Amino acid sequence: MVAGECKRESGRLISLIQNLTHTHSMAAAATTLRLLKPLSSAASPLLAPFNNPTINRSVAPLLLFSSAAVSRHHRRFCTVVSASVSSGEATKAEPIELEKGAKIREFRRKLKIVDIKGGVDEGLNRLGETLVVRGWVRTLRAQSSVTFIEVNDGSCLSSMQCVMSSDAEGYDQVESGVISTGASVWIQGTIVASQGSKQKVELKVDKLVTVGTSDPSFPIQKKRVSREFLRTKAHLRPRTNTFGAVSRVRNALAYATHKFFQENGFVWLSSPIITASDCEGAGEQFCVTTLVPNTSEPAHSPVKAIPATKDGSIDWSKDFFGKPAFLTVSGQLNAETYATALTDVYTFGPTFRAENSNTSRHLAEFWMIEPELAFADLEDDMACATAYLQYVVKYILENCKEDMDFFNTWIEKGIIDRLSDVVEKKVVQLTYTDAIELLLKAKKKFEFPVTWGCDLQSEHERYITEQAFGGCPVIVRDYPKAIKAFYMRQNDDGRTVAAMDMLVPRIGELIGGSQREERLDYLEQRLDDLKLNKESYWWYLDLRRYGSVPHAGFGLGFERLVQFATGVDNIRDAIPFPRAPGSADF
Amino acid sequence: MVAGECKRESGRLISLIQNLTHTHSMAAAATTLRLLKPLSSAASPLLAPFNNPTINRSVAPLLLFSSAAVSRHHRRFCTVVSASVSSGEATKAEPIELEKGAKIREFRRKLKIVDIKGGVDEGLNRLGETLVVRGWVRTLRAQSSVTFIEVNDGSCLSSMQCVMSSDAEGYDQVESGVISTGASVWIQGTIVASQGSKQKVELKVDKLVTVGTSDPSFPIQKKRVSREFLRTKAHLRPRTNTFGAVSRVRNALAYATHKFFQENGFVWLSSPIITASDCEGAGEQFCVTTLVPNTSEPAHSPVKAIPATKDGSIDWSKDFFGKPAFLTVSGQLNAETYATALTDVYTFGPTFRAENSNTSRHLAEFWMIEPELAFADLEDDMACATAYLQYVVKYILENCKEDMDFFNTWIEKGIIDRLSDVVEKKVVQLTYTDAIELLLKAKKKFEFPVTWGCDLQSEHERYITEQAFGGCPVIVRDYPKAIKAFYMRQNDDGRTVAAMDMLVPRIGELIGGSQREERLDYLEQRLDDLKLNKESYWWYLDLRRYGSVPHAGFGLGFERLVQFATGVDNIRDAIPFPRAPGSADF
Repeated sequence: MVAGECKRESGRLISLIQNLTHTHSMAAAATTLRLLKPLSSAASPLLAPFNNPTINRSVAPLLLFSSAAVSRHHRRFCTVVSASVSSGEATKAEPIELEKGAKIREFRRKLKIVDIKGGVDEGLNRLGETLVVRGWVRTLRAQSSVTFIEVNDGSCLSSMQCVMSSDAEGYDQVESGVISTGASVWIQGTIVASQGSKQKVELKVDKLVTVGTSDPSFPIQKKRVSREFLRTKAHLRPRTNTFGAVSRVRNALAYATHKFFQENGFVWLSSPIITASDCEGAGEQFCVTTLVPNTSEPAHSPVKAIPATKDGSIDWSKDFFGKPAFLTVSGQLNAETYATALTDVYTFGPTFRAENSNTSRHLAEFWMIEPELAFADLEDDMACATAYLQYVVKYILENCKEDMDFFNTWIEKGIIDRLSDVVEKKVVQLTYTDAIELLLKAKKKFEFPVTWGCDLQSEHERYITEQAFGGCPVIVRDYPKAIKAFYMRQNDDGRTVAAMDMLVPRIGELIGGSQREERLDYLEQRLDDLKLNKESYWWYLDLRRYGSVPHAGFGLGFERLVQFATGVDNIRDAIPFPRAPGSADF
Repeated sequence: MVAGECKRESGRLISLIQNLTHTHSMAAAATTLRLLKPLSSAASPLLAPFNNPTINRSVAPLLLFSSAAVSRHHRRFCTVVSASVSSGEATKAEPIELEKGAKIREFRRKLKIVDIKGGVDEGLNRLGETLVVRGWVRTLRAQSSVTFIEVNDGSCLSSMQCVMSSDAEGYDQVESGVISTGASVWIQGTIVASQGSKQKVELKVDKLVTVGTSDPSFPIQKKRVSREFLRTKAHLRPRTNTFGAVSRVRNALAYATHKFFQENGFVWLSSPIITASDCEGAGEQFCVTTLVPNTSEPAHSPVKAIPATKDGSIDWSKDFFGKPAFLTVSGQLNAETYATALTDVYTFGPTFRAENSNTSRHLAEFWMIEPELAFADLEDDMACATAYLQYVVKYILENCKEDMDFFNTWIEKGIIDRLSDVVEKKVVQLTYTDAIELLLKAKKKFEFPVTWGCDLQSEHERYITEQAFGGCPVIVRDYPKAIKAFYMRQNDDGRTVAAMDMLVPRIGELIGGSQREERLDYLEQRLDDLKLNKESYWWYLDLRRYGSVPHAGFGLGFERLVQFATGVDNIRDAIPFPRAPGSADF
């Protein structure tokens, strides 16, 4: 019955394929994608056999039958299959019963290449199955008797090797050159054991349909292109091996982050992005405003159109928020308000720095994870940071094996060992004072001199984690008060605060945290010392007026974590659309 | 052994408690929270027995023993327990071994009230257990022989009823009035069956420690306060029943969102927040700039300090991104770039509208979920939206029962039935044309007249879902081209597009989606018709040049979903820190 259905489809597709071989123009390709006149009643049974990962030949007819029974006026899957079919079914459709409405198609997880090849037996369990692969052509290689087409759908690094002989339907599209790198295809075939050594199985093509051709100008051809170049093609770079793998690992790290905190009873909190709160201190913030002429055409933005007061200042009362507003640099202070109500919370959202540093380590827009724990001290904070890091690293080692192997081979040799160390080796801690002592005793010459009170430089951090502790992540704690933020809890020595930085090999500082000053009088004193405006911290101080509790938290730049986990050098390759000075396209 | 440890702690805490009863000043309370001089080696075994949800009296001594064996120089848990202890252990600590570093405490899920009372037997399985509760006092009620203290830690709606007789340690703090609503406490006691009807178990207090007192000005006293008032106390409102429950349900909806998409093979994508891309069309966007004097002190922001060109226009070349940049209004176009590489993706991040509408339905900053499916048409899109909504609603009905009961009783009667309908009843679809016909036939008089081509108003949407389909969610599809966005796929009738809106009772439109125009020539024609600048869409058009595929997606405003799921009237109560015209505090 499946075979019968497929045959009928094939018939309908012939005109489509013929169209394609006659002309390569976009317009013609577009015609092939025309949607059927939409039917009011439109559950499609045909998708089922191709879409269900568990289906195989023996059960397909049954499923098809039961789906067909659900709806009499079914419609072919999507434009690809239904294209150019002037079906009689549309006209046969009964008038819809208004008081009942029509059904919604059942949603099913799409069958993807990872579902076929990603299991332990790499697809051997599917030998003999007929199925459909949809994706983009990576390479096309014609040999005397057969043509090899590598199709990738982004679900995993591996492409599906599709082997097509000249008698398969749609072979004319291969012959005529309609199909090239970058084209999108719909291929139906049978899973067979592969002759090649690169994969266990391949797809013997029964039928190929070109969904969308690829203009010869497609910038990502087989030859390797630089990552610098790919940054100018941020809309196409996820179609490469490297950026596909980074995207999947980034996704896995994000999901593992949520899993870790949810499993441990933390509540996710969206901290605000725009803030008119004065707490964050200006300087490196972006201003958010509706006062400047709101157009992207430079000619239409006269300075004099900006509302001004009599003394020539910007009239902020006319702005959207009635005062200057900025993009947040951290959600921590907001997270503290929720931690002192819900006990354990975390943020995971974008933060911003208008820092004019065009380096491979800085982004103007980046995602931060900021957990905040109530009834917790610095020890709890370090324990949480350590457990978190080990959890997410373990998660990607277990769930992104193929991508991690790719990074290990092509991006950073040894990265899997380095990450395994993080999971298996103990994270150790030492005080800043001890770290300084250790650096002073070190035989290594440092560029930046080491004295108590100095901020640790990258070279110092890397020496500590890479040399002194042989690759273990190290937490340095109890930093001098003078080099840390106002909200960090003062230690009893009066000169250090309960801060901690986690240092990891190759990256240096990955996580920074602290116990927060929960004592109202200490906090007010600190604000005074730093000449900060106490009034603007009224709500933050309130947390110390009403049921103050010891609490602690940390922040982790998500793109740093992605770099750490994938080995990509430049942080702009760790986020889909990087923002940096002079660069906010796409 | 636990009992012995507790006794020793008690001794140490006596001076703390005495301090507190002598004075109510904040300074004194602060003193009680002073941290021990930090030790370099600081794994704390004491936390373990109180922190482990599975512990009970019989296993506690063993655990304590094994923890103690881990580290010789242990430190008391946090400030609460270690306060005012001038421990000899600090001086006894051996010098740390620099080459080894000290250990990090093991991270454990904190024992919370939900862990005690949240199970099926509501705590009866813990009868006789000695444990510690940490949280904030909701109410304190003294009776002749005992005092009832309701302690809430935000892990669930329920507070722990703590029953304290006059012979319990720390009773003097109750007597002297140190403890009041809003104070934070650390209470150790034994789980006993409750005499009251409101709960199955309560905590018989052995010992109470005030962690932080609450100033009498604490604005959230027992008397009910309005939600308008609470918006001015956004930093404290999560300590109320309503906002605690909203926070937990919001968290559950967010996590269920990730779970749904991850389980179905979608990749989470962070779409950019700042964008200089011209695609989004100006008008209701916020400008992001570093050109305006970057200070929150209005006096220091002269208009003339803004860089200008000779003709008096703002000199955008001097801005951070070298041209005007804006806050994103949607991540969809970016999501399309990743969908056409990874097949199925979703965004979940903040988006912005500088719309000057001060209503209960609009926010200037809100979170959006935008899935995008490649090789998919409008049918698939509707199927995905339906499955998604049913999944997340089912998730909160199953996982947030107590909070949902609270909403059902106090916020919106019948909300549980309404949500159960969404999960159980079929979602139906009908075309816009049929919807218009249905509305024209309706006996109801509408305020806004109905004609083909008009945008559906809230009254129409609610009539369709609430009356015509008796409470079923309804998807209306195939809207007139003229009232929908440029990227929506044109239907063959030439006058409608493959758009869909999901309407739900009480809210109206919850989800809006469409199949995207994947045909280059159609898309270019549409841009021309609408006089949009084709050049600025170069990368979006590229997706149609290189392996174009039918694709579809939808957008869902997360705060609308939170409103739908909790019944809160005003969208400003569905997000922790709402941003609206004139309002961006905290």
